Amino acid sequence: MQHEKWSKTEKAVAKRAFEAALHNEYEALAGKIKEMASHVKEPQDIWSIHDFLTEKRKEIGRKYDYRYSRLILVFALLIKEGWMEEADLRGLREDKVEKIKSLASGLAYNPDDD
Amino acid sequence: MQHEKWSKTEKAVAKRAFEAALHNEYEALAGKIKEMASHVKEPQDIWSIHDFLTEKRKEIGRKYDYRYSRLILVFALLIKEGWMEEADLRGLREDKVEKIKSLASGLAYNPDDD
Repeated sequence: MQHEKWSKTEKAVAKRAFEAALHNEYEALAGKIKEMASHVKEPQDIWSIHDFLTEKRKEIGRKYDYRYSRLILVFALLIKEGWMEEADLRGLREDKVEKIKSLASGLAYNPDDD
Repeated sequence: MQHEKWSKTEKAVAKRAFEAALHNEYEALAGKIKEMASHVKEPQDIWSIHDFLTEKRKEIGRKYDYRYSRLILVFALLIKEGWMEEADLRGLREDKVEKIKSLASGLAYNPDDD
């Protein structure tokens, strides 16, 4: 993918959108952990929380990659997964928004998800 | 340490005591996780649960070593940590009980705990 140029304004929009998505994902994760913890009955339930967090930690670390060369793809994924909304992209150049939306809709039909 | 011989009766006592201690430790761990989860506010609180479980998983895996050659030391540690009570050892030969108690009280004064 051709590297995009990001204006100062766009960088501010991107940063805010990125942080908001991360916040949303953490909020959901906190809710999920509270729910899993409240249902712990067997030792295995405890290790399921551990396994789940091990995966989430890797996934979040990989996914939230704030390099401008990666951001179009990162945002597409965050939109596809529901952590970011198209409205969060307001302030980016239209061609970037279109690329993000187009990639997100491609990702949405990824056969690996089936 | 000289290896002990375990009679069939002693093996049954040991197995029951071992399982009871493990059960106690898991009960406490479940309570701790529920408590930690209920206090999650920041992302770091989530990763603290993960770090805590990573350590606990290693610790429990290491500690609950049901080899007869290790059991005296394992039981001493479980008594020292409060997961097992001396009453759980009823049915073991007196010399084993004494060794376990003696080791447990030695462990209790381990300067590494300070």
